[in-house]
Amino acid sequence: MDPNTMTPERKKIILDCDPGHDDAVALLLAHGNPDIELLAVTTVVGNQTLEKVTRNALSVGTIAGITGVPFAAGCARPLVRTIETAPSIHGETGMDGPAQPASTIELDPRHAVDLIIETIMAHEPGTVTLVPTGGLTNIALAARKEPRIVERVKEVVLMGGGYHVGNWSAVAEFNIIIDPEAAHIVFNEKWPVVMVGLDLTHQALATPDVVEKIAAVGTNPAQFVMELMEFFTKTYKDAQGFDYPPVHDPCAVAYVIDPTVMTTRKVPVDIELQGKLTLGMTVADFRAPAPEDCHTSVAVDLDHEKFWNLVTDALVRIGEPGEPAAAPAADLAAAADLAAATAEAK
Amino acid sequence: MDPNTMTPERKKIILDCDPGHDDAVALLLAHGNPDIELLAVTTVVGNQTLEKVTRNALSVGTIAGITGVPFAAGCARPLVRTIETAPSIHGETGMDGPAQPASTIELDPRHAVDLIIETIMAHEPGTVTLVPTGGLTNIALAARKEPRIVERVKEVVLMGGGYHVGNWSAVAEFNIIIDPEAAHIVFNEKWPVVMVGLDLTHQALATPDVVEKIAAVGTNPAQFVMELMEFFTKTYKDAQGFDYPPVHDPCAVAYVIDPTVMTTRKVPVDIELQGKLTLGMTVADFRAPAPEDCHTSVAVDLDHEKFWNLVTDALVRIGEPGEPAAAPAADLAAAADLAAATAEAK
Amino acid sequence: MDPNTMTPERKKIILDCDPGHDDAVALLLAHGNPDIELLAVTTVVGNQTLEKVTRNALSVGTIAGITGVPFAAGCARPLVRTIETAPSIHGETGMDGPAQPASTIELDPRHAVDLIIETIMAHEPGTVTLVPTGGLTNIALAARKEPRIVERVKEVVLMGGGYHVGNWSAVAEFNIIIDPEAAHIVFNEKWPVVMVGLDLTHQALATPDVVEKIAAVGTNPAQFVMELMEFFTKTYKDAQGFDYPPVHDPCAVAYVIDPTVMTTRKVPVDIELQGKLTLGMTVADFRAPAPEDCHTSVAVDLDHEKFWNLVTDALVRIGEPGEPAAAPAADLAAAADLAAATAEAK
Amino acid sequence: MDPNTMTPERKKIILDCDPGHDDAVALLLAHGNPDIELLAVTTVVGNQTLEKVTRNALSVGTIAGITGVPFAAGCARPLVRTIETAPSIHGETGMDGPAQPASTIELDPRHAVDLIIETIMAHEPGTVTLVPTGGLTNIALAARKEPRIVERVKEVVLMGGGYHVGNWSAVAEFNIIIDPEAAHIVFNEKWPVVMVGLDLTHQALATPDVVEKIAAVGTNPAQFVMELMEFFTKTYKDAQGFDYPPVHDPCAVAYVIDPTVMTTRKVPVDIELQGKLTLGMTVADFRAPAPEDCHTSVAVDLDHEKFWNLVTDALVRIGEPGEPAAAPAADLAAAADLAAATAEAK
Repeated sequence: MDPNTMTPERKKIILDCDPGHDDAVALLLAHGNPDIELLAVTTVVGNQTLEKVTRNALSVGTIAGITGVPFAAGCARPLVRTIETAPSIHGETGMDGPAQPASTIELDPRHAVDLIIETIMAHEPGTVTLVPTGGLTNIALAARKEPRIVERVKEVVLMGGGYHVGNWSAVAEFNIIIDPEAAHIVFNEKWPVVMVGLDLTHQALATPDVVEKIAAVGTNPAQFVMELMEFFTKTYKDAQGFDYPPVHDPCAVAYVIDPTVMTTRKVPVDIELQGKLTLGMTVADFRAPAPEDCHTSVAVDLDHEKFWNLVTDALVRIGEPGEPAAAPAADLAAAADLAAATAEAK
Repeated sequence: MDPNTMTPERKKIILDCDPGHDDAVALLLAHGNPDIELLAVTTVVGNQTLEKVTRNALSVGTIAGITGVPFAAGCARPLVRTIETAPSIHGETGMDGPAQPASTIELDPRHAVDLIIETIMAHEPGTVTLVPTGGLTNIALAARKEPRIVERVKEVVLMGGGYHVGNWSAVAEFNIIIDPEAAHIVFNEKWPVVMVGLDLTHQALATPDVVEKIAAVGTNPAQFVMELMEFFTKTYKDAQGFDYPPVHDPCAVAYVIDPTVMTTRKVPVDIELQGKLTLGMTVADFRAPAPEDCHTSVAVDLDHEKFWNLVTDALVRIGEPGEPAAAPAADLAAAADLAAATAEAK
Repeated sequence: MDPNTMTPERKKIILDCDPGHDDAVALLLAHGNPDIELLAVTTVVGNQTLEKVTRNALSVGTIAGITGVPFAAGCARPLVRTIETAPSIHGETGMDGPAQPASTIELDPRHAVDLIIETIMAHEPGTVTLVPTGGLTNIALAARKEPRIVERVKEVVLMGGGYHVGNWSAVAEFNIIIDPEAAHIVFNEKWPVVMVGLDLTHQALATPDVVEKIAAVGTNPAQFVMELMEFFTKTYKDAQGFDYPPVHDPCAVAYVIDPTVMTTRKVPVDIELQGKLTLGMTVADFRAPAPEDCHTSVAVDLDHEKFWNLVTDALVRIGEPGEPAAAPAADLAAAADLAAATAEAK
Repeated sequence: MDPNTMTPERKKIILDCDPGHDDAVALLLAHGNPDIELLAVTTVVGNQTLEKVTRNALSVGTIAGITGVPFAAGCARPLVRTIETAPSIHGETGMDGPAQPASTIELDPRHAVDLIIETIMAHEPGTVTLVPTGGLTNIALAARKEPRIVERVKEVVLMGGGYHVGNWSAVAEFNIIIDPEAAHIVFNEKWPVVMVGLDLTHQALATPDVVEKIAAVGTNPAQFVMELMEFFTKTYKDAQGFDYPPVHDPCAVAYVIDPTVMTTRKVPVDIELQGKLTLGMTVADFRAPAPEDCHTSVAVDLDHEKFWNLVTDALVRIGEPGEPAAAPAADLAAAADLAAATAEAK
């Protein structure tokens, strides 16, 4: 059973990413969840060079057994700034840790920007959600090249920024600060933007009980995630002092699947382009009720259990790619219970 | 009994202010608390023009019956920026609401900057605390004119800024944004700086029970505070949507009296001078343990009851200036209890 | 005789423009000069909205009798900033003054950015010169979408900027300040950039003798130019106090035709993105010999007569579109002499 | 004969400097010229630390035989920025080259800022000219501490900036960029400001004929100047590629003595505080006629011979301090002729 055909009214998304350990989990979640229809996967320079993150995306797609979804490479550098990658977090390959299989997916010849534009324009207005989990270079260029996508997109649910938390400077987050001009473009277009920032994703920690649950799935993709988390745990401990790593990117996908997985607040957000200490800050104005036409909101509180259940559930559904079928729903619940029981027994 | 002679080792402060409703309360608290020795009161443009805030400072000093403390006027405009005052909060006089008596205090002929320098240099090193509750123009100029004050001052406990809260922009507070260059000077000198910002002072609300307690004091200075709060309540409601007004400035004085009135956290803080959206932001870096030589800390949580008891207690001690004596401690507790009881009975 | 087939090794250019009075003259010069092979004409928001400047470009192409050259529309707004047009100089249509014929040229369906990329990639490396005479949004997007064009382009000869002269602020020029981020991209890519800025173009005045020469051509396109200059003279007088209008854009085309029409100096140039007074300034560093790898140069002194002879000559060659042939070279010299004589006789 | 008593209506100046080779020449010119009444010499961090430039000022005063003029030290660091000195130009002492005598002048105990304020307030309004030849920290602080000096000062004739020339960045000059906020204060106050910038002072080269003339004076102060120029020639050659060093600071004094020594142009000038490439630029707006209330002008063209004759003349008048008298005017002309003849004979 193909998880992409289970639900009649699935949510159509384009995942624009830079895998990246957490991007990998986001892609697995998007593929494995029955409420998501993955229209395209596009890549952008970020956690590593475009070449590396594109190879990683194809690897994850292969591991997940994704077929019939175009993968396309996009921008190799930010709009204005020079390239800055994150080897301290993601290693030299951008997805260090697990061995990567040879990809069986062929890269689409189109530029990601064109694939994004064509995909949006080919679907009904208001049906396609953009889910960027890297820098916003591709999305910004698409909006400038074809302005009509802005009113056609359902919403932009992005991982990036932080209204009270930074990680790449005191007050700025990596995905935004690496291309603040692109972020400025995306946040200032009048489409609905949901910012799933560090305020939220620092709650999405891969705690030991989470890892247990994933281990309990027992498939190759789950094992792959385990190895990603192992590396991620180490670098987040070393580089930023976290006990358990925040798994940022699948939070954005989870919001699309089920907005109740987190609370959000409607608030004006803009991007600081000039600050010496605040470059790339997502400046949110909480002072008063958001204006009527406010089109931005920020994620506030995460339902940690619900979120990780979505991830585990997707992994169970993905099963072993190449094999006939994922477990039926009843078994899923059993597997989750088993995982939870195992975790608690520790 | 003069409250300024009760304690043998009182804390010496210079109050640099721009009254201002809450500055007035800060001055009354500093004068009425037995642990504070008020060395000087200096004024600076801010809530209103220098002329107006200086007249207000003299009025408050007269109402409080302050004698033997020099009052001096300082800078009439910020270092680099043009003058911005706050009539929406403090009215046209800068202290609208109560009638102001003719001042019986004569202004010191010295410039505030010189009075600050001379006062610091005349006392033992490490004994004088600067308590700025307005823009930091005077303090910055003093540090530039006489750099030796920096290592001689005990600490700078200032009301201003906010690590996660703004009031004059999305992320900046009035006292800092009106003279961000001065703030940059003050925060970057190596003296200890305690930033009592909006994060803290938005907890110092003049709630109805507080107003009851102050009413119960029953003196002219208390009546004056009541009328200040009445006006302040209205403008804070109209201009910023507060149900009860935050009474910022006495929080800084309260910290000097008793640091346990609030929690603080040591964290690097710097001032953004270039940001388009973030000009004047007090950028605090919470990402990691503060470095060994970190000399800045920020106020986090207020003990609301303890704080307001300090204010009420000071008003009780001030009594009716010109009359013989304030109530003894036992009566004070009784008065506070009475006030609390009255408030609860409502 | 088609002027586009006269010379065996003509210089291939893509003209990226925002007509605009002087853009119109640039297009006529490019079309009428036998040393230029016009590969494509692309339009970009600037002097007026994209819609208006695109219509104007098609009009000018129709008046000039251009055939077989693709015209494509590009970006409708700058990368980061909001749209700013120049009606005070170019009127409401962007090319006020002469009546505009119905266009007989059909717009190419491709986006200008794609047409630019495809055209460059379809020709031999080092053979195509980009000639932008408007904001640099299209060029910047092309360089980001297809980075390989950078080393493939022969050079970028742009009208814009000014190392010691501004027109849209004290130190910034219109084409740069309307999209400074795009300019930053273009000036920082490692292709050769020749900046034909205001320092040069303020020497390209349409003085009365120039207008006489053009009048002497006596064709419809020449009459069209006369009417453009009439309007341009008035707005430049009213808006910027010029006695005779500077005809900026054909200077860039003239440089491609014959670099000896002006002197240039190799000097590092970068774009200011943060300045409050200097946003969009083309900051040239004349302090020392330019470094070995300096890839930018600036135009300094114009040979006014040689420049305007190129323009007049092109108009003569264009003749009356639809009619058999332009004048042979000998007649051209005679026409020029006649025009000069007429001017002097006045 | 004391040159300071020759003329009944001499121009009163306060020289605020950071000697500095050219500051030394400025001080000698001010002292030796009969039209100048030197009211005070104040020092400020700049070419070297405050301690060093103050020692240098006292040395030059001693060499020149200055008596009865207060010398006072001012600010030890810029307002906002960290200290940047210029050892590449002025050496480790700030005045490397000649041996420095023990000073016979005692430093005034007042802070330079107070000396400036008191001196201005003690003289008739409109009679005192400020001549800053270093960073503008002292002048800015004086204006902020005592705003009444602004309308009381006759004018500010400063060496600094450059409307088309930079030396410490592509477009900024040392005196301005080391304390741009102070410069912003000085240029934005409404007193008349004459900016004698690099555009002018790069014409004030100490060419061989100039050096010959100074040599011909034959006194100890002249020998001192010769040795200053020798060092200055070398560092300006090495650090900035000049064949002959520009002797900046006396140009400002020369303008006060005789404005016809240079041409100036009234034009609005402001200081860039935010630019990444343009920080500290003196942004002059030449686009249109200066507005009626324009209070700033810039120096454009220098009369090289007249300027250096003023310098040589001052040295002749100073003679050998301690000895009875300087040469009378007739001898002066003869000496100058002799010097010129000697130079030409080479």
